[in-house]
Amino acid sequence: MSTEVGLPYSPELTVDEANAEAFARLDGADPWVVDVRPAREVLPGYRDNLVLTSGAPMAWADYTGGQREALIGGALFEGLARDRADAIDGFATGRIEIGACHDYSAVGSLAGIYTASMPVFVVENRAHGNVGFCNFYEGKEPRRLNYGCYDEGVHERLLHVNSVLAPVVGEALRRRGGVALKPLIARALRMGDEVHSRNAAASILFNREILPAVLDMVDDKVPGVRETMLHLAENDYFFLRLSMAAAKASADAMVVPGSTLVSAMAFSCRGFAIKLAGLGDTWFEGPPPIHEGKLFAGHTEDEITWMGGESPITETIGLGGFAQACALSLQEYQGGSPEVMIERNREMYAVTHGENSTYRIPLFGFRGTPTGIDARKVLETGVLPVMDVGLAGRDGGQIGAGVIRAPRECFADALAEFDRRFPGR
Amino acid sequence: MSTEVGLPYSPELTVDEANAEAFARLDGADPWVVDVRPAREVLPGYRDNLVLTSGAPMAWADYTGGQREALIGGALFEGLARDRADAIDGFATGRIEIGACHDYSAVGSLAGIYTASMPVFVVENRAHGNVGFCNFYEGKEPRRLNYGCYDEGVHERLLHVNSVLAPVVGEALRRRGGVALKPLIARALRMGDEVHSRNAAASILFNREILPAVLDMVDDKVPGVRETMLHLAENDYFFLRLSMAAAKASADAMVVPGSTLVSAMAFSCRGFAIKLAGLGDTWFEGPPPIHEGKLFAGHTEDEITWMGGESPITETIGLGGFAQACALSLQEYQGGSPEVMIERNREMYAVTHGENSTYRIPLFGFRGTPTGIDARKVLETGVLPVMDVGLAGRDGGQIGAGVIRAPRECFADALAEFDRRFPGR
Repeated sequence: MSTEVGLPYSPELTVDEANAEAFARLDGADPWVVDVRPAREVLPGYRDNLVLTSGAPMAWADYTGGQREALIGGALFEGLARDRADAIDGFATGRIEIGACHDYSAVGSLAGIYTASMPVFVVENRAHGNVGFCNFYEGKEPRRLNYGCYDEGVHERLLHVNSVLAPVVGEALRRRGGVALKPLIARALRMGDEVHSRNAAASILFNREILPAVLDMVDDKVPGVRETMLHLAENDYFFLRLSMAAAKASADAMVVPGSTLVSAMAFSCRGFAIKLAGLGDTWFEGPPPIHEGKLFAGHTEDEITWMGGESPITETIGLGGFAQACALSLQEYQGGSPEVMIERNREMYAVTHGENSTYRIPLFGFRGTPTGIDARKVLETGVLPVMDVGLAGRDGGQIGAGVIRAPRECFADALAEFDRRFPGR
Repeated sequence: MSTEVGLPYSPELTVDEANAEAFARLDGADPWVVDVRPAREVLPGYRDNLVLTSGAPMAWADYTGGQREALIGGALFEGLARDRADAIDGFATGRIEIGACHDYSAVGSLAGIYTASMPVFVVENRAHGNVGFCNFYEGKEPRRLNYGCYDEGVHERLLHVNSVLAPVVGEALRRRGGVALKPLIARALRMGDEVHSRNAAASILFNREILPAVLDMVDDKVPGVRETMLHLAENDYFFLRLSMAAAKASADAMVVPGSTLVSAMAFSCRGFAIKLAGLGDTWFEGPPPIHEGKLFAGHTEDEITWMGGESPITETIGLGGFAQACALSLQEYQGGSPEVMIERNREMYAVTHGENSTYRIPLFGFRGTPTGIDARKVLETGVLPVMDVGLAGRDGGQIGAGVIRAPRECFADALAEFDRRFPGR
């Protein structure tokens, strides 16, 4: 079901050679956003009764808290159930199916809910021919479906995305012939973004890219254009979903048997998980991530809850926490000092295969971002990959932001399996 | 002729008190761009035969090289002379007048040529009631009137500004009710700009501010809107003229008798000059600035020439070189390493009165930019104010960019005069 692209199995490759190949494929990725379509039309193998969510796949009974609430909300939004009880029954009986976003070439933000009608960005990796997807940002309101909330306001905002914003952005992209995301992200890194927790520059750069098409659409009296452009102009977080789709399309090209580089990081309500480029679709699960955060006023540490998240796909390709020295103004949003952020970013060179040839850090004299997490190096050094994330509260909604670290266990398990699969490498 | 605003002379103020007052007025300035109008309509006391240029006022005979060429080009562009010889005769006989931009509440980029028909940004300082002006950026072409060039291409581009770009931007600003520049600049500092040699973020933030009005104008079939928006979207340097006008409107509010803070820095083909907030309109001249730069491919050091420049008004109010730690990607454009840029920026705290309460540096933990250059501190410490500037070539055109330092002599002369004017302070 995945559109991951792999090389033919090559028993001759050493781990170093396999990693060099996986890194080259990641570093050479060329993601373009070309369209916006409903999930049912473009996600490979999508069914109308399917709801996707973040993290390694689990049985319905294992989904708890906000992630469970988000799944129920998704079913209600899509009209797959009459009410909450019917939705729960639907999931329990299998009438409503649950899938893992990654298995459909998609990535989900926080709880990461996809339903059939939801519009998704279609991002082609033009260097390797595979495609990655991500659905839309719901807006600034802390109560959002992907933060485990579902009520009339959430419903209205999701409908607005489906009926107004997505059609306009989709048409602009088709008229424009697509937008190359790699140079846009590279430019945003010079403008204070790391395109995970800060997307202010990338969002307006994206708006600028579609502006010529948008002006034509105003001329052509296409409905909703003005409203959409004003919405985009006000939502500094809009681009995150594009950086996630670009990252997914880039990381999926890494699959090289025998490589110990990480090709995905994600979490669910149960814990954190990674994939290795050399071990295909297998997830290696560990406990929830370790966090240090900054909470919005009125919230406390004990409210923090894990309800999923696949935006660490950005760190997987050398962005987000791996480029946080580009985005020092995040100190205000997620806590920490410039010194800590810079040191944390520098530390990531110890666990990565190489330096990105496109994504560069002005503060480090345009050194490429640390790219391609090597599970072996994580175990050898004990340095755990960092990620810039939003923090969810146990009652739903976003309550803060912070930095998390991947737990060591996933890397140890992945390498143990690697040794079984590739003995003697 | 100036619209500078001063306090009544107050013999009781100590220098420290006067400086505190001047700093408070600078720090409290609230510049808004509200309109675009031809220079003749809004610059106080403008005459149709007047050409303005950068630096302390001089006689025609003292203008040499590129600045002289730029004056001649301005006269030709405005139709004040039939040809080059007639223009020279016009300046020599006084039929064509020359003025200093600063005397008309305006600031000029490089040679800084203004003629009667040229559109200018009108920036109101809403905290103090005074107004500052700056004319438009000519575009990316290295051959520009303000770099001492005048030919058919320069003429066409200037006409295009007059007839297409300026009317559209002006109408958008009037429909929008003006744009507050201070929060926009503060935001740009978080996005990699210092709004002197880097304006990439500020330019697109400005475009975003006028977008609602622009979309209405497309609906209303106002001519030239599409063309103007695409031009703006492609010109990362567009905002410089707005930051200069904002800086002029802010600095002009500093005039406080008895203050040793610098209220203007500018240069001409002859040399560098400063004004003090406590000494009104008097310029204190010194030799040309000291420079370290990076030249565009194919150019050499010996080509560098001084043909004027008043963009250091940005440094005067705590931006540009005084905020270069915000804009580390400038290392590529103007040379230097991140370490040098950071150290240079930090050094400016030794010569400034205080820290800006709005313009802040993420890398310094959001410390306010060093603001309000105190001539006494420059002399005491020997630390010379830095400025990020474009470099002009002796044959006209931009040949590079770099960092310059104000010469010590102006500060010594200004303080000598200060001692005569305010004995015993």
